[in-house]
Amino acid sequence: MESPFGRVENTLGGSTIYFAYAASFFSPVRLVGVVGEDCPPDFLAPMHANKRIDMSGLEVRKGSKTFRWHGKYQEDVNLRDTVSVELNVLAERGPTIPEPFRDSQYVFLANTHPALQLELLGQLKAPKLVVADTMDLWIRHERGTLMELIKRLDGLVLNDSEAKMLTGEANVVAAGLELMVNVRNFIVIKKGEHGALLFTGKRVYALPSYPTFCVVDPTGAGDSFAGAMMGYLAAEDKVDSHTLRRALAYGTVTASVGIEGFSLEKFYNTSRPEIDKRMGEFEELVRF
Amino acid sequence: MESPFGRVENTLGGSTIYFAYAASFFSPVRLVGVVGEDCPPDFLAPMHANKRIDMSGLEVRKGSKTFRWHGKYQEDVNLRDTVSVELNVLAERGPTIPEPFRDSQYVFLANTHPALQLELLGQLKAPKLVVADTMDLWIRHERGTLMELIKRLDGLVLNDSEAKMLTGEANVVAAGLELMVNVRNFIVIKKGEHGALLFTGKRVYALPSYPTFCVVDPTGAGDSFAGAMMGYLAAEDKVDSHTLRRALAYGTVTASVGIEGFSLEKFYNTSRPEIDKRMGEFEELVRF
Repeated sequence: MESPFGRVENTLGGSTIYFAYAASFFSPVRLVGVVGEDCPPDFLAPMHANKRIDMSGLEVRKGSKTFRWHGKYQEDVNLRDTVSVELNVLAERGPTIPEPFRDSQYVFLANTHPALQLELLGQLKAPKLVVADTMDLWIRHERGTLMELIKRLDGLVLNDSEAKMLTGEANVVAAGLELMVNVRNFIVIKKGEHGALLFTGKRVYALPSYPTFCVVDPTGAGDSFAGAMMGYLAAEDKVDSHTLRRALAYGTVTASVGIEGFSLEKFYNTSRPEIDKRMGEFEELVRF
Repeated sequence: MESPFGRVENTLGGSTIYFAYAASFFSPVRLVGVVGEDCPPDFLAPMHANKRIDMSGLEVRKGSKTFRWHGKYQEDVNLRDTVSVELNVLAERGPTIPEPFRDSQYVFLANTHPALQLELLGQLKAPKLVVADTMDLWIRHERGTLMELIKRLDGLVLNDSEAKMLTGEANVVAAGLELMVNVRNFIVIKKGEHGALLFTGKRVYALPSYPTFCVVDPTGAGDSFAGAMMGYLAAEDKVDSHTLRRALAYGTVTASVGIEGFSLEKFYNTSRPEIDKRMGEFEELVRF
């Protein structure tokens, strides 16, 4: 990963990793995923060390190689270029949800092939809330399957360029309203440093980002945002409009902590009270 | 003016026009400016019809041609290209503040050459609050004069790309904090559809824009924003942090009304109670 602030190699990453760690500040997390046997055991040590994350759903597959992403952020850290991607293990068979995890109530299907997301969804017993993320690759090449998935979701989280691409709308509010008719509860459109929009119950809510100049590595910010959001919803066990708005705000402040360091390093020394403190500051600075 | 939603020619425009009309919803306005004698009298009729705007500071200069701007908005209406500019009358001598206007307390120096802004500032008796706007042209070619102006201001309003250009900072929060040391009270950084940031008293406040899909013509949105902001401050006769935050919110909702039609047409049928109604909706949708 290269950013205007430095370069690191072989750091722990992946949507699920950021998501799970951020969610764990709010509720216990069950992680399901697959890595290749090339993944050094000490690489996942911080995840295993986090007592709030149940890692028993992580498959280490023999003879396979882990997914790798090499990205480079531009001066404007909202813009990043993918330098190279190796799908590796993700191009093979997906992970399986362990039997003891199948009664999970708050479920997030992190960004991967929508067919795999659908397959995982089918393994669940009776989830209360199923939310998914996606990306440009699937919007472009797997639109049919993606729309099939979206129609089975309670909520969809995606970024502004993806929402525009998926709907063909140039206006992000119009895009969100159009997507809303497909899901049962809400659409969240992430706008990076420009905050997020929430569409629920035929209404649109807007949230700025936490204004900070301390951005070391924005990788995973969207995943940390979604993780904290889902963790908060699970902890509150409610998904009404007010709880959703607070969940987005918690997502915003948690992500703002994460980007102050490379990879997950800032999260290791963060706890819920520190996030609550920043949440209080955030409430103050958006009030008028 | 061309936008993805249509094209209009010879519409009434100019920073001061949008600014004055938006400000007039909140307090009486004294307009100072200069146009050429090519400006059709009925062109300014809606301004003259607005009883809250004192037009006696508008000079119609014989033998001169009015400033003209031809712009084109891209699909992403945050991006606009200047197709052509004819400075005309603005390249000559600036306007003079009429004697009865020189005791004005809340003063906004709309975007023009910073030497002219300084000259106008020198004609004022004892203003309570002087705020200015600027643009890329002056940042690039008149930096010294612009910095001289900024050091004499209570507040500066500029957009995010201008703040970055002026400071050389890639991060907009860092840019705002750097600019803060030069002014007496505040910096407002406008981010178009992404809202605005307020820097005052060593703190940073963030505001999203009013989320709307009804954008017909974003021309003048920044000027309407500044006009409503200044009008509200003048009406409240206070410039503390809380009043400033509410002023930015009023700027946001007033601008969101203006962009729903071409030129000023939406403003003609708008009144303060309607703006207050939208303000109430805006407060609701940013609350969490």
